[in-house]
Amino acid sequence: MMRLALTIEFDGTPFQGLQRQAHGPSVQQAVEDAAFAVTGERVILHSAGRTDSGVHALAMRSHLDIAKDMTPFRFMEALNAHLRPAPVAILACEEVDEDWHARFSCIGRRYQYRIANRRAPLTLEKNRAWLVRQELDADAMNDAAQALVGQHDFTTFRSVHCQAASPVKSLDRLEVERTDDRITIYAEARSFLHHQVRSMVGCLALVGMGRWPVARVAEALAARDRNALGLNAPPHGLYFVEAVYPD
Amino acid sequence: MMRLALTIEFDGTPFQGLQRQAHGPSVQQAVEDAAFAVTGERVILHSAGRTDSGVHALAMRSHLDIAKDMTPFRFMEALNAHLRPAPVAILACEEVDEDWHARFSCIGRRYQYRIANRRAPLTLEKNRAWLVRQELDADAMNDAAQALVGQHDFTTFRSVHCQAASPVKSLDRLEVERTDDRITIYAEARSFLHHQVRSMVGCLALVGMGRWPVARVAEALAARDRNALGLNAPPHGLYFVEAVYPD
Repeated sequence: MMRLALTIEFDGTPFQGLQRQAHGPSVQQAVEDAAFAVTGERVILHSAGRTDSGVHALAMRSHLDIAKDMTPFRFMEALNAHLRPAPVAILACEEVDEDWHARFSCIGRRYQYRIANRRAPLTLEKNRAWLVRQELDADAMNDAAQALVGQHDFTTFRSVHCQAASPVKSLDRLEVERTDDRITIYAEARSFLHHQVRSMVGCLALVGMGRWPVARVAEALAARDRNALGLNAPPHGLYFVEAVYPD
Repeated sequence: MMRLALTIEFDGTPFQGLQRQAHGPSVQQAVEDAAFAVTGERVILHSAGRTDSGVHALAMRSHLDIAKDMTPFRFMEALNAHLRPAPVAILACEEVDEDWHARFSCIGRRYQYRIANRRAPLTLEKNRAWLVRQELDADAMNDAAQALVGQHDFTTFRSVHCQAASPVKSLDRLEVERTDDRITIYAEARSFLHHQVRSMVGCLALVGMGRWPVARVAEALAARDRNALGLNAPPHGLYFVEAVYPD
């Protein structure tokens, strides 16, 4: 058997999410089906993160094992050919040690959340960013974000469906940057709770709109109560951008 | 009557082009129909440029005249509401002098052409860039491009359907820049011939692939012969980005 690490880009719009679902298409199923078409083997795709329906990835990291004798490059090319027309692309494929695990070896996850802050509907970026028509104060959002950086109990920013053992996570970075009418939020941590990034972004947006004072984000965190959440930002602005490994 | 200048963004994928066509949807028809729904008036949309099917615009400039008494802002908001779900958005709308003309007052047009230079199919940018799988030498492309800057007879780079009176145009800028696996070509001129940008980009791509030596672009220009054209780049990588006016 050969273990192959994949770097995967996908448009999350038509999928129920990255991971296989009982009902509806998933990125995992698309890749596993393509791998079966290439190798005749029923493989399981393991990935660094789980993503909700509509969430995108610029560089998800995943792995699978195959017995068929072919180079990683040829396997990648064949996968891409069989994936079409699904909006999933294998950007890189390399052989890794058999104890390397896309999820368990991963020591850092990076997300971006993209907001288009303008009146007009989105055209070229439909389903690629969250359209917020009300003027946002990105500096206030960034100030509020800093209260979330560090190790905290993130119960307020956690989906009720979250399966993590503990609500305590260490957030390494949460920065808000504006360029013209685009606001990007950068989030980095060893791992995140389910809906954590979207929940943090939703509350920061309320601060940006002036509906929440900056200090209320810290209060919401301290409440450790899902009912203190102001808003969960929609999935289509969220991008998984990098998985970090010790090597 | 009030003359309104519009700044329009659109995804060209579902349209036959910007200008009204006998058969098939056009951006012009979408905007004129929306204006009719708002005002009850049959207006004509005049634009700085014509674009082919599949070509996009980040900021096309256009104008139309309406008799209805409403503010430019309210007209823009109503247009956007009626344009949906067509991927056309009015980014700005302002009253201008009655002798201001989106096409005839325009003294400069700027385009960008976007190439994704990678093996993997496009997902999030499908129909948003030209996928070129062969490694491109962007420096060689930029060197070759400089032969086209200045006033020349661009017959080689002109569609046989071009309606311009003369094939002589003055190209102010043609630059090729690479960032990671993205190559952007910036083109600026007072005006362009039909297919000129796509034809220039196609030949530059041949240089980038090593199929044409750098000097061949200058030779193709000097030939003043459409048969000397190497390749017409596809429309979906092309963006109209700015129209320049004297004010």
